[in-house]
Amino acid sequence: MSVTSVPGFIAAGMACGVKPSGADDLAMVATADGVAVTAAGVFTSNLMTAPPVLVCRDHLSATGGQAAAVVLNSGNANAATGESGRSNAETMCALTAESVGCAADEVLVCSTGWIGYPLPMEAIAPAISVVAGAMNDEGGPSAARAMMTTDTVPKTTVITGTTTGGATFTVGGVAKGAAMLEPNMATMLAVLTTDAEVDAGTATELLRAAVGVSFNCLTVDGAESTNDTVLLLASGAAGPVDAETLGLALSDACRDLAIQMADDAEGSTKTVFLTVTGAATAAEAAKGARDTANCQLVKCSWYGEDPYWGRIAAEMGAAGISFDPATISISYGGQVVYADEAVQPVDADALTAHMAGRRIDLDVDLGQGDGAAWIVTTDLSHAYIDENMRTS
Amino acid sequence: MSVTSVPGFIAAGMACGVKPSGADDLAMVATADGVAVTAAGVFTSNLMTAPPVLVCRDHLSATGGQAAAVVLNSGNANAATGESGRSNAETMCALTAESVGCAADEVLVCSTGWIGYPLPMEAIAPAISVVAGAMNDEGGPSAARAMMTTDTVPKTTVITGTTTGGATFTVGGVAKGAAMLEPNMATMLAVLTTDAEVDAGTATELLRAAVGVSFNCLTVDGAESTNDTVLLLASGAAGPVDAETLGLALSDACRDLAIQMADDAEGSTKTVFLTVTGAATAAEAAKGARDTANCQLVKCSWYGEDPYWGRIAAEMGAAGISFDPATISISYGGQVVYADEAVQPVDADALTAHMAGRRIDLDVDLGQGDGAAWIVTTDLSHAYIDENMRTS
Repeated sequence: MSVTSVPGFIAAGMACGVKPSGADDLAMVATADGVAVTAAGVFTSNLMTAPPVLVCRDHLSATGGQAAAVVLNSGNANAATGESGRSNAETMCALTAESVGCAADEVLVCSTGWIGYPLPMEAIAPAISVVAGAMNDEGGPSAARAMMTTDTVPKTTVITGTTTGGATFTVGGVAKGAAMLEPNMATMLAVLTTDAEVDAGTATELLRAAVGVSFNCLTVDGAESTNDTVLLLASGAAGPVDAETLGLALSDACRDLAIQMADDAEGSTKTVFLTVTGAATAAEAAKGARDTANCQLVKCSWYGEDPYWGRIAAEMGAAGISFDPATISISYGGQVVYADEAVQPVDADALTAHMAGRRIDLDVDLGQGDGAAWIVTTDLSHAYIDENMRTS
Repeated sequence: MSVTSVPGFIAAGMACGVKPSGADDLAMVATADGVAVTAAGVFTSNLMTAPPVLVCRDHLSATGGQAAAVVLNSGNANAATGESGRSNAETMCALTAESVGCAADEVLVCSTGWIGYPLPMEAIAPAISVVAGAMNDEGGPSAARAMMTTDTVPKTTVITGTTTGGATFTVGGVAKGAAMLEPNMATMLAVLTTDAEVDAGTATELLRAAVGVSFNCLTVDGAESTNDTVLLLASGAAGPVDAETLGLALSDACRDLAIQMADDAEGSTKTVFLTVTGAATAAEAAKGARDTANCQLVKCSWYGEDPYWGRIAAEMGAAGISFDPATISISYGGQVVYADEAVQPVDADALTAHMAGRRIDLDVDLGQGDGAAWIVTTDLSHAYIDENMRTS
């Protein structure tokens, strides 16, 4: 049920001492034979890009989209660390390459955790050959566990599809985090593997599209981390796959991981599926959805299980998108609570029961056009504040 | 110390029954003789504009910028109420005009409170002549009290300056709220009076500029209300005032009220003065400042009195503005905590003492150019959630 569900990939996780707690903090995913395969990455657009992201971009560019292994650490983001941070990221790749038996630029690297402190290379460097040696074809969940920061459960996925030749292909994944979860333990990371055959250009294009309809539709607090990274390794062993079919499988895998992130988001008690329809354009629908999802006031009302529509309407009105206030309608759990500029009668018991569940469905119809967007988000709780008010 | 500190203006506040608590909820500010004077207004840009805002705009347009009175209620925002809401706002103006002795379109109207419920006109209508009859030249603080929703203290100001002829002129003000404070009790409202002589066009221009450097530099939660309104009545009794002098006095008055709003913002324990310098442009400085001020994660760190710079840097990086990560420096309470891509040594005791105070000074220098911006904001606390998680 992870990256190692795909034939030909191995993985492992272990504790190397980055985290003072002694929890697992070093992971590796690689091809079983150490031979580079098609690789693609989608990265944060944060200007304070962390060194491991810069190294991934360089390596993918140098190899034309080939990689044999991904090395990941949690507990320290290696972000805002300048030249020495970059050198440490390169060292992690070089040591991994030695162990796996590939070239250094065929290794990708991810870090997640505290921003602004040098990586404890004295802990990481000697452990890399150990984790490499521990990799096996059931090690995916262990890798997922070693990627965790404030996650309470590891996140894995597996999706299957049919190749052009009628065989089965698999997409497996491991991930951590949910957008920028907290001030110091940043980052969402995901590593996907597949045995589908795909060239690097198409892989990048499909991965970017999959991220667009999954992780980019997830917002916990509107903050984009310095380290966000989604990587794909594609071995081709299962043969060619129609691009649309592979794209759907990648989207399904990414969406599954994104929803797991929301369900496990720091301090959250609700996972909210917000759909905006009837916007003038898809871009306006997305803007309205994102602004509303990131509104502190709206998030508080979800925590309070309150189907209050007034703040939803006001937030849509402030989003800088076009609609007629007379045509907006707002529904919770399928029940229209506001329409025609007036509060609507509802089945109060059913509405209360819906708001009391973990999952809340919120639909906003702007009544203008065909623009639609979907976003998954969470509430704002006391526990979120508790987890984020101090870095130590 | 308010609108009635300006000679020629009277005001009053009272309870008319909009608020179930029985607290004061109806206010009026007017010229003592009921004669219209120069008037100007600056309003919310929220698309879900509340009917009283629409009525204010219409009246100012019809009169070419003249008004004799402002009538205000708290406890109900008369927002998202459609045509009947508009009719109720017009009725409030007509009844006020009858009592004051002016034309209906010489009256401006403001409402603040719950969104989406019809105004209880049976409570408001008969009280308008009562509050009008109660107005006197010491009634400003009473009016300020009747404007309050979740405010814990009334907000008033008085600023004096010198006219072109060497006499003294006064700007007085009353206000409530701080941006969009909560999902149901929305709105910031301010009414300013002055005896400076100024034409309607100049008054509007100066008021807009004053709002730009005060209320528009205040953000509690990034939400813009459906009812935000700032009004100015200028009698001219003190004679002509140099535009720059009047502009400064209006800015001072608005800034004083804005800081009072931050100090009294719902559930807040910190008032944060965030200054961004060294940006490529003023607009980029403002964007970086606003994004950082509205970041939940950053707000949590202020609540925790934690001078953590990592999230500040990451938020600036995500703001879509241009700077070199190597040149950013971040200071709390005048102490540089991050610069040259590294944590800086600090006087830990002094820093702890600064973070423990009500007021926190945060300075970010991007090291690019001359663009600068200032913003005042607040932290995110348990109490904020408590006040906003349920509308009832």
